[in-house]
Amino acid sequence: MNTEGLIGSYGERLAALTAERGPLCVGVDPHPSLLASWGLDPDARGLERCARGMIEALGGIVPVFKPQSAFFEAYGAAGIAVLERTLADIKAAGAISLLDVKRGDIGSTMDAYAAAYLSDGSALAADAITLSPYLGFGSLDGTIELADRGGRGVYVLALTSNPEGTQVQHARAADGRTVGQIIIDEAGIRNAARRKAGASLGPVGVVIGATIGHTGIDFTALGGSILAPGIGAQGGTAADLGEVFAEATRFVLPSTSREVMSAGPTPGALQAVATRVLGQMKAAIGLR
Amino acid sequence: MNTEGLIGSYGERLAALTAERGPLCVGVDPHPSLLASWGLDPDARGLERCARGMIEALGGIVPVFKPQSAFFEAYGAAGIAVLERTLADIKAAGAISLLDVKRGDIGSTMDAYAAAYLSDGSALAADAITLSPYLGFGSLDGTIELADRGGRGVYVLALTSNPEGTQVQHARAADGRTVGQIIIDEAGIRNAARRKAGASLGPVGVVIGATIGHTGIDFTALGGSILAPGIGAQGGTAADLGEVFAEATRFVLPSTSREVMSAGPTPGALQAVATRVLGQMKAAIGLR
Repeated sequence: MNTEGLIGSYGERLAALTAERGPLCVGVDPHPSLLASWGLDPDARGLERCARGMIEALGGIVPVFKPQSAFFEAYGAAGIAVLERTLADIKAAGAISLLDVKRGDIGSTMDAYAAAYLSDGSALAADAITLSPYLGFGSLDGTIELADRGGRGVYVLALTSNPEGTQVQHARAADGRTVGQIIIDEAGIRNAARRKAGASLGPVGVVIGATIGHTGIDFTALGGSILAPGIGAQGGTAADLGEVFAEATRFVLPSTSREVMSAGPTPGALQAVATRVLGQMKAAIGLR
Repeated sequence: MNTEGLIGSYGERLAALTAERGPLCVGVDPHPSLLASWGLDPDARGLERCARGMIEALGGIVPVFKPQSAFFEAYGAAGIAVLERTLADIKAAGAISLLDVKRGDIGSTMDAYAAAYLSDGSALAADAITLSPYLGFGSLDGTIELADRGGRGVYVLALTSNPEGTQVQHARAADGRTVGQIIIDEAGIRNAARRKAGASLGPVGVVIGATIGHTGIDFTALGGSILAPGIGAQGGTAADLGEVFAEATRFVLPSTSREVMSAGPTPGALQAVATRVLGQMKAAIGLR
């Protein structure tokens, strides 16, 4: 039954779900110190109880979950098996999975990453993944095409808030644009070509740190979702969103991790924090 | 028995093994069309027969194997289990494993990647991995430190030969240096601080396409290994190495994949091609 006409685009699905639940992405970052705070051992079993416990508690209220692949890869094949089950849980809960893998490569290698993370039938298929553009935005085109055909999306790293990031991201091309600006422009070009009539969001999102401050960049031309990590315990506030994104704030998907996860493992405590942050983000961003 | 004093540094181990076997890295890139040409199905079982068959045939003559993680990730947890066994085979054969993962992240996430790929006791531990610097070279420092402590190394993407790569890699910082140059300079600074007395190579290598042509960059200041993909079927020749690297050609680890793998699955045929390419690279580069 899943013919192309019946699958919503990633932008449509994201807009509908955030309109219903609120604009928020919750990171699933089961790092060793978090497992310890949940009373779990740093092994694949502890990983599974933490990651799947998050989805069990929050799967019905949070629109987007962002598992961080590194914390699963750290346990080898056993950890990846937990990631497969976590992604299945997110799907079963009716939420969107945004797998944070930051992959970036060329040719048949990039095709293999797309097959792993953005293809129907793959055990690791997610609704969207993060990508890294060091090899040039064009190296990601085949992956974007595959994602969009299956109603999936991508988020390309653009401007991050870690201080070391400016070394690459603020370097300038011959035409004067910074690398970060170029990535945003390139994403906008792909979205303009792929956005369905009437849809506000195309399949190509970007990652922009919530705390990078005023950039002078007009993000409204992007036509895609803006993943903005750093909300909550990492320092970003609703006011920061307005400062960075201005008119484009309505396209922002703010992401938080530590603030929610550290409230666990009790489901009620996780739900209370998630509900509070969802309320803050609804107030800051409004509905699309 | 593996106390720190007894572990050679990555640079020492690489120099010794390439002096003995010749300067060559053979990619383990089991993509679907290669599996088909070996008469194997595109599943985890076919993947295992291909990847481990490569090491069984070539483990005693090739110094460095570079498994491409994407082709294993494409089969989910089952593929990662094959990667674990492939890495164990490389170690058992006395060769060096250079796992091509191109990871790049910050903070506790980058720590988790380092734990997965560069830590004793991890099922996915390799002798070296590739890293991507889009988040800034400094974001990789903790990983470099951990790698070096365990006698391991890293290769940071710098200048790649795909045409789209110049968009990011040729952008310029305020001081006029290109991003690619900055990555090479930063690697050189880390190597100068870590290179053991008398060792020619520090733990921080860079990835430079074998076919990028003349750059004007002096690579001798790097003090680390230069992974140069693109030799053989991908178009690069011994003459290209001299043109790109000049005096630094002796630090180059040329990498080939299709030329060797496509000779399989017969072990004798794989060995014949690998031996021939090893001979060409010895002639082009000489011993360190």
